[in-house]
Amino acid sequence: MRHALDAAAAAGRAGEVPVGAVVMRGARVLAVAGNAPRTLHDPTAHAEMLAIRAAAAALGAERLEDCDLYVTLEPCAMCAGAIAHARIRRLFYGASDPKGGGVEHGARVFAQPTCHHRPEVYPAIGEGEAGALLRDFFAARR
Amino acid sequence: MRHALDAAAAAGRAGEVPVGAVVMRGARVLAVAGNAPRTLHDPTAHAEMLAIRAAAAALGAERLEDCDLYVTLEPCAMCAGAIAHARIRRLFYGASDPKGGGVEHGARVFAQPTCHHRPEVYPAIGEGEAGALLRDFFAARR
Repeated sequence: MRHALDAAAAAGRAGEVPVGAVVMRGARVLAVAGNAPRTLHDPTAHAEMLAIRAAAAALGAERLEDCDLYVTLEPCAMCAGAIAHARIRRLFYGASDPKGGGVEHGARVFAQPTCHHRPEVYPAIGEGEAGALLRDFFAARR
Repeated sequence: MRHALDAAAAAGRAGEVPVGAVVMRGARVLAVAGNAPRTLHDPTAHAEMLAIRAAAAALGAERLEDCDLYVTLEPCAMCAGAIAHARIRRLFYGASDPKGGGVEHGARVFAQPTCHHRPEVYPAIGEGEAGALLRDFFAARR
């Protein structure tokens, strides 16, 4: 989660909402990414999406079986759907997101019968630092 | 929807589940894409995602305001989330997807309070041909 928090801070310095994500396979870091929709002109470029796509490209595989995803914020519905499609084994996330989350809020993607793969979910990992990054970012913009 | 159906058929010939998508702005086709997760080694490479990303890149913008998306199958939760993030104005889709859909089934992404943008939704547009493509594809694999 340290790598994910660092990627989140870097995203914030680039003017993006500070969220970071890492895909690991065992002890190996497959991909690290920060949120970048503005920079990349891509509405799908959330940190989780970029990390999943980079990890799949690195493995040359459509699925990330036996891989774990660390992300500083509760994934939205789009990212939760991507996590299911990628067959991520374990999901660790930091801050909970009542306004936009899709795991424990809103769409609750993994709880739906239409969800074909459910990762093990570990919330509130590093949530203090992850939440502080987000609060400071939005406070500076008010 | 003709372009989307053609892209779906082409995806099927490439061994992908036959789904196609088009992003239009008025009468202008901004992007056409077929489903390609296997070919691209990318679990997020659904037709809608590829078309949205290509259209945003073509416009150099994070959001696709005033744009419409045509897709041959009901979008999943991931794609519905991306449609909301992209601020797509109108969504036209063909076949309904009780097993994996996220618009009228499962996560019902646009019906959630965590959804920050709801397109106008027009289901069952060209559903006969869209559904036949999918049925023939899966029947040939049994």
